[in-house]
Amino acid sequence: MSAEPTDDQTPTYVTAGKEFDRDMNYIPDRITAVDAATGEPRRPSYGPDDVPLWAAEPGRYRLVAAKACPWANRAIIVRQLLGLEDVISLGTPGPTHDKRSWTFDLDPDGRDPVLGIERLQEAYFARFPDYPRGITVPAVVEVATGQVVTNDFPWITYDLSAEWRDHHRADAPDLWPDDLREEMEVVNKRVFTEVNNGVYRCGFAGSQETYDAAYDRLFTALDWLEERLTDRRFLMGDRLTEADVRLFTTLTRFDPVYHGHFKCNRNKLSEMPALWAYARDLFALPGFGDNTDFEQIKAHYYVVHTDINPSGIVPKGPDLASWTTPHGREALGPTPSFAV
Amino acid sequence: MSAEPTDDQTPTYVTAGKEFDRDMNYIPDRITAVDAATGEPRRPSYGPDDVPLWAAEPGRYRLVAAKACPWANRAIIVRQLLGLEDVISLGTPGPTHDKRSWTFDLDPDGRDPVLGIERLQEAYFARFPDYPRGITVPAVVEVATGQVVTNDFPWITYDLSAEWRDHHRADAPDLWPDDLREEMEVVNKRVFTEVNNGVYRCGFAGSQETYDAAYDRLFTALDWLEERLTDRRFLMGDRLTEADVRLFTTLTRFDPVYHGHFKCNRNKLSEMPALWAYARDLFALPGFGDNTDFEQIKAHYYVVHTDINPSGIVPKGPDLASWTTPHGREALGPTPSFAV
Repeated sequence: MSAEPTDDQTPTYVTAGKEFDRDMNYIPDRITAVDAATGEPRRPSYGPDDVPLWAAEPGRYRLVAAKACPWANRAIIVRQLLGLEDVISLGTPGPTHDKRSWTFDLDPDGRDPVLGIERLQEAYFARFPDYPRGITVPAVVEVATGQVVTNDFPWITYDLSAEWRDHHRADAPDLWPDDLREEMEVVNKRVFTEVNNGVYRCGFAGSQETYDAAYDRLFTALDWLEERLTDRRFLMGDRLTEADVRLFTTLTRFDPVYHGHFKCNRNKLSEMPALWAYARDLFALPGFGDNTDFEQIKAHYYVVHTDINPSGIVPKGPDLASWTTPHGREALGPTPSFAV
Repeated sequence: MSAEPTDDQTPTYVTAGKEFDRDMNYIPDRITAVDAATGEPRRPSYGPDDVPLWAAEPGRYRLVAAKACPWANRAIIVRQLLGLEDVISLGTPGPTHDKRSWTFDLDPDGRDPVLGIERLQEAYFARFPDYPRGITVPAVVEVATGQVVTNDFPWITYDLSAEWRDHHRADAPDLWPDDLREEMEVVNKRVFTEVNNGVYRCGFAGSQETYDAAYDRLFTALDWLEERLTDRRFLMGDRLTEADVRLFTTLTRFDPVYHGHFKCNRNKLSEMPALWAYARDLFALPGFGDNTDFEQIKAHYYVVHTDINPSGIVPKGPDLASWTTPHGREALGPTPSFAV
């Protein structure tokens, strides 16, 4: 994601005296499976369906997702878990961005090699010339028109599971099992408000009081997760689901960034035994650790948030070698078949 | 200590592009034992002696030392270890200060009850009306005149040991044993440049390059200390010395402040087994833990250094309850007699 642009050169994240309030208004379009009878994208069976629908067609779309961003990182992981690499291509902006846009500064000549643009903003403006909100990742862009289709991150990953099923690899995990959906929604909501967004509520707090309250909320939720994961291999039990992906991208950022930069410092992740072993278990699965780039993660937060780190200096720590130490979680449940 | 005052309202600690350079010019006067033959303060047998000398007389001086400041905290600890509480009184400025001075904001009516001043600056100006340097703690003030005598922190604590010996309590430890002095000087120098000041070199670095170099220097030294303390109960072996006091006040600030605020984050102190147990061993001794105020320590750094923490928000963490857990260091050497 990204901060709201402001009139001057410096984006601001902290509003004095205020609790952080994430702008949750996204481009709500969905990409859904083609209905065999009509040849049109079908109404989705779950979630908002009164939105523009686009057909799930291999090669038509490009996922633009910065490895640094936890919300975008989710989509990168899900795409690989489902085996959609040859179906939806991936563009990766660099870790830092200016007030206007994420940029393709890691690519040759600073341009995305497929879309040919320097700034993701161009894809937003191609669709909405006066687009007024933040230029966020993940975003799905239609390659032929260069127009952004959607940046509504929870539906992007959900639809990769539900609407691209015909294109998944054979041993792809079912990240949204029907029998777990009801409980997953409850878990996902709590993880989102208290943890995924909870760390930002600490870091972008505009007063001591809002920070203190945010810290208590965050660690109350982490204590709940620590207990929940003590006797479950994955968040929903024996099966890997998208709930794990959503938690994972916050956990990988916890010790390198949130602990210091966002003042989430009751303890490190590595001081919570079940959560820490769980994070390492996921890290070892294909799709998770290999899509985690700690250097980009650190550079993003410490460089972009100039109002909480004016020097822009990126810490050298922590020592991350321990991410690949044995996790010992095998006894709690089966290893996903795709990883065996 | 304190930052150099600047012309505007905000003291600055970071100089863009530069390595941090501590101003080591202090008021060099020394307070020494009275020579029985002359009735005058004697020439000290160790250290600079071409400086104004003041007589070590009970009741004549007040030590002004903020609990928040590591350099001042040393003097508070040494004063208590030596049993000088009834001989040299103690004034304690609050944890924060403005660009001009440490202030007695914790005292009734915001005034030191003995000196009657609101700002330590007044004692500096009473002696030097145009005093141009930072108003630092620790400082020793002559009560009758309200004039600062010295703020030269290493000599303040040394002279409490060497020059006030007649007034020590009976079981006071010898913090500067003659047979260890030579080795102590080497250890103290490395601890000062690499650790005590090394954390500031990380936190006040003006560029990524100076920070990176400072981080490597710091952790090289901490690795040396970790190894040194693996088979020694105290820094110099079996005996508690001032070398331990000097290291201790940096270690107590490490996880609450330096790890996050100064980006000294390869690992927490609590992740270095020997150093962490050593710190807890000292913490349990009378004079150490009871003169450690974690709330004041955190408030000082996070509120005063507005150029590295613009919000002024003080982290709630870390959880510090583990400071009083068993340290298991008894097998490495004898417990100091005053603590048995």
